[in-house]
Amino acid sequence: MNKIYVVGIGPGSYEQMTIKAAHVLESCETIVGYTVYVELMKKHFGNKEFLTTPMKKEVDRCILAFEEAKKGKTVAMICSGDAGVYGMAGLMIDIGATRYPEFEVEIVSGVTAALGGGSLLGAPFIHDFAVISLSDLLTPWETIQSRLIHASMADLVICLYNPSSKKRHDYLEKACDLIMEHQPETLICGIVKNIARDGETIEILTLKELRDKKVDMFTTVYIGNSNTKRVGNRMVTPRGYEYER
Amino acid sequence: MNKIYVVGIGPGSYEQMTIKAAHVLESCETIVGYTVYVELMKKHFGNKEFLTTPMKKEVDRCILAFEEAKKGKTVAMICSGDAGVYGMAGLMIDIGATRYPEFEVEIVSGVTAALGGGSLLGAPFIHDFAVISLSDLLTPWETIQSRLIHASMADLVICLYNPSSKKRHDYLEKACDLIMEHQPETLICGIVKNIARDGETIEILTLKELRDKKVDMFTTVYIGNSNTKRVGNRMVTPRGYEYER
Repeated sequence: MNKIYVVGIGPGSYEQMTIKAAHVLESCETIVGYTVYVELMKKHFGNKEFLTTPMKKEVDRCILAFEEAKKGKTVAMICSGDAGVYGMAGLMIDIGATRYPEFEVEIVSGVTAALGGGSLLGAPFIHDFAVISLSDLLTPWETIQSRLIHASMADLVICLYNPSSKKRHDYLEKACDLIMEHQPETLICGIVKNIARDGETIEILTLKELRDKKVDMFTTVYIGNSNTKRVGNRMVTPRGYEYER
Repeated sequence: MNKIYVVGIGPGSYEQMTIKAAHVLESCETIVGYTVYVELMKKHFGNKEFLTTPMKKEVDRCILAFEEAKKGKTVAMICSGDAGVYGMAGLMIDIGATRYPEFEVEIVSGVTAALGGGSLLGAPFIHDFAVISLSDLLTPWETIQSRLIHASMADLVICLYNPSSKKRHDYLEKACDLIMEHQPETLICGIVKNIARDGETIEILTLKELRDKKVDMFTTVYIGNSNTKRVGNRMVTPRGYEYER
């Protein structure tokens, strides 16, 4: 059976890609992806065909990849982070099964933004956590609200993807207000901008400070649980019960 | 400032490590870790000092790493998956800040089991999800219960770490019973055993079937949300609203 690959390239730098992801991309003739990520890969993998489609054209992008593969080319669809975390792996499997059943879709994992940024902040995910996207493009805001409320009530560490966009400039503020109904405003939080790219910055702050923070679509947001603490300039969630020092 | 590294080696195979993790381990003189993971690394990184401590001796393991570094050696503490997801990153930062402030603790991200196994199953995490450990070694069972209930009520995809052990043979059954109070027993679930190691197997099943499944400590469990579906032999969570075919 012919293979087509869906590859998570990690948070952005070549070094944070897995060895397998690099091998697969080296072995492919055609790399398909969203414009921004294809540009990031061009400098590391030359002498290939690079095909792009803009954002919100994900179905077209999948069809483009399969059609290239049908011509006999080895094709990889790339995604930032992990191919399966809000990535293209699902659509590729789905469209493959319906329209291109002659292909086996192989998914290659990567370091998703939550983990890449988490390492920069310290260790926010040493205990249970939830990953929630604030984008209401394909999800009703009521569902997002319910997830924020339940995650706060369960005292889960929360990582927010897509915390803002031009149309949704006040969503992070709304999210923090919901969380503050169940968690103290002194909760330790963190933000990471431009993970593994130019302009990478981190900041540790309280939930109340986070509420009034301006963030953009290249920001990942971390909201601690009731045990999360600031250790120097890092954000650390303990494993559970205290341990001896 | 002297550096000490905490490195996530990914789910188990050399290929699923990041390029950065491999570079850091190659550059180190001493690799410290839990016995099982140190054995996995020995074949790839020869000519080094390897130091181990058994499970539940995590504080001792951190002190061992720092004491080696104090002798002037470059030291990496290794963890399976990501160094920050139930990993050693938190303890290393904490113990470093208290006892060894002369060292900067650098965390190197990796592919955590949830993502490595998710890629094998298909695409379970295309939408919001929670990661919850069923181990009550350092967490009260009441807290774990509350997290399972809230995550189900919020219709989050759930990934379970540590679903079973000798002492906790019925915890997965208990967890499924709690989730079934809020989700249908036909919910699509998946299990992955021995991710990226000998004996790797996947299985897709319903929540009801999962309840009666025998799993071990090398199993990662995936519980879909109400939209998760079976596509051929894969588990796929859609992005949200339906899309045109």
